[in-house]
Amino acid sequence: MPAVTWNSTATDGKARTGWLRTSHGRVQTPAFMPVGTRAAVKAVDTDDLIAVGAEIILSNTYHLMLRPGADLIADLGGLHGFMGWDRPILTDSGGFQIFSLTPKVDEQGATFKSIYDGSKIHLTPEEAVGVQQRLGPDIAMVLDVCVGLPSPRELVETEMRRTLRWAERSLGEHTREDQALFGIVQGGIDDDLRAESARETAALGFAGFGVGGLSVGESAEDRNRSLDTAFAELPDDKPRYVMGLGDTDGLLDAIARGADMFDCVIPTRLARHGKALSATGDFNINQVRYEADDGPVDPDCGCHTCANHSKAYLRHLIRMNELSAHRLLSIHNLQYTLDLVSLAGDAIAQGRLDVFISDVRGKRQDGSS
Amino acid sequence: MPAVTWNSTATDGKARTGWLRTSHGRVQTPAFMPVGTRAAVKAVDTDDLIAVGAEIILSNTYHLMLRPGADLIADLGGLHGFMGWDRPILTDSGGFQIFSLTPKVDEQGATFKSIYDGSKIHLTPEEAVGVQQRLGPDIAMVLDVCVGLPSPRELVETEMRRTLRWAERSLGEHTREDQALFGIVQGGIDDDLRAESARETAALGFAGFGVGGLSVGESAEDRNRSLDTAFAELPDDKPRYVMGLGDTDGLLDAIARGADMFDCVIPTRLARHGKALSATGDFNINQVRYEADDGPVDPDCGCHTCANHSKAYLRHLIRMNELSAHRLLSIHNLQYTLDLVSLAGDAIAQGRLDVFISDVRGKRQDGSS
Repeated sequence: MPAVTWNSTATDGKARTGWLRTSHGRVQTPAFMPVGTRAAVKAVDTDDLIAVGAEIILSNTYHLMLRPGADLIADLGGLHGFMGWDRPILTDSGGFQIFSLTPKVDEQGATFKSIYDGSKIHLTPEEAVGVQQRLGPDIAMVLDVCVGLPSPRELVETEMRRTLRWAERSLGEHTREDQALFGIVQGGIDDDLRAESARETAALGFAGFGVGGLSVGESAEDRNRSLDTAFAELPDDKPRYVMGLGDTDGLLDAIARGADMFDCVIPTRLARHGKALSATGDFNINQVRYEADDGPVDPDCGCHTCANHSKAYLRHLIRMNELSAHRLLSIHNLQYTLDLVSLAGDAIAQGRLDVFISDVRGKRQDGSS
Repeated sequence: MPAVTWNSTATDGKARTGWLRTSHGRVQTPAFMPVGTRAAVKAVDTDDLIAVGAEIILSNTYHLMLRPGADLIADLGGLHGFMGWDRPILTDSGGFQIFSLTPKVDEQGATFKSIYDGSKIHLTPEEAVGVQQRLGPDIAMVLDVCVGLPSPRELVETEMRRTLRWAERSLGEHTREDQALFGIVQGGIDDDLRAESARETAALGFAGFGVGGLSVGESAEDRNRSLDTAFAELPDDKPRYVMGLGDTDGLLDAIARGADMFDCVIPTRLARHGKALSATGDFNINQVRYEADDGPVDPDCGCHTCANHSKAYLRHLIRMNELSAHRLLSIHNLQYTLDLVSLAGDAIAQGRLDVFISDVRGKRQDGSS
């Protein structure tokens, strides 16, 4: 029995709902994963995550291997024990963070400087697997080579092929039986490279597939075409995870194309800057129009923040730089995003995803006009 | 029927327990009031305050009158409605904050500069009452003149007498029927001045009495003697509030002398610097000895933080400057302080306060040795 399985429970066009089963419980897909960069989702606690309905969260191998270190976390019961979170966890491989630090890459691995103390770190695909086996998430990701967009086709191709070779080495290294390893599809926005990457990654036989290298500045059209291209080459019975995607339009586009899992720092990062996500259009709460507004951020939202506090109060907290403001808006923005994805799943099950998507877009359009 | 009443439910020597009744419910005394400077206790939310058992909180008139302003708060349902807190609230008068800004004081009032925009603000005792009537706490405080210690006796005497005249003007101005106004005893650490201030303030007939101008650098011996002196002149059937006191030894000393109410920023301020209060001695969690410590901050504590997270995890969050660390340690330190005061009340009711106090001190001594 594999550590992680996925089966579809309903389809609507290319979109699908499903159950992701892990040794820490079942996740309904489509699923949004809040990002706990350093074993903590910024400004919120584990019980806040349970309250907003998060069924799986993501944490960052890159940060955790440097601080507090994978061996320490392993000694303290792995990430689940360390954080006090007993639902599923996925860790990224560190690829995305490392490649934002312009590392030296050779066939063996990547060499980069620690953001914490400037020390030189060498990470190979095998070591990325080893670190994640010690961290103990339910799902680990292979170390991939991320290329910024736009980039010359030759570079995209070279690094896509390197990612394939690293994926094979990662699979050979992975032994932990209560953990799944997902491959990552690269290839930029060149359709033939994307297709080749998906086909060859699928052929390696992973338990699931990340689609990486998107949401890095390309157009929505390019992103959507790249998702279509990748998904066409991936097996129907394995979960598909679009890495780094979390805005309303992007989530709806990807779900309609058959994506199952997402992660993004946007909901919590925007919250810390006072921006509230809302069904009637996102807005910054630090505007004078909300000074005396005693209504909640979103009257239809069931989150702790909307149940207890007004826009006027939240605006005051944001302006006074009160720490609780960051938590309260983060809770709301996570609730908004988790609800959106969950309601999309309901719509798929009812065969009316297209109606749901045009309703969501219509309301946001009306609200912001 | 007065807006706020207090009656004793048990005594043990000079110490007493009691019920403080307000239009937002009953508070058991002795009671510690967490400080919500800007209508928010730093880093925590109202439901966290309920979870740790806070029955009454304090907020600062000085900050609220400047941001967001008393009229706005009045329009939004007063402080209770604005914050989403329906238990009792006490506001200070702004005296302590204003006098830390070296204001120009004349008989009419105090002139000082706003910390927010540098504008010049004039505050009279009547205006301090007016602002607090608009803010709508259950208990308002008179505007007093705080004198730093040590100060020349002549200055202490002059300003103590001015505080008495301001107290009388404040009482004359106060009309809100669902709100009580408390007087404030000043007089530094000069016993005769303290006694005169207490006697004359009591004679004005307030619903309760703050004891101000202590915990400002004087010795514990001077503070305790000043409390004894003041309490001897105050009526037995009115609540006594020691302003700005919140450390373990100070609370125990004051409770043994017959104090009923306290406020202090120390528990939450220390938390934001990584310091944990504990029955076995306070400690900074950012020490290498806690790096792999999977035990809670205090195994006997029932707070959310101790129930869910280890010292190793909290140390990691503090070191990474994660916002949630401030909330989690603030919750614990508030729980510690509220439990201490509440357990002292139980001990009074059982006639064994002296045993309780020596037990608490003994454990803290042993733990820190």
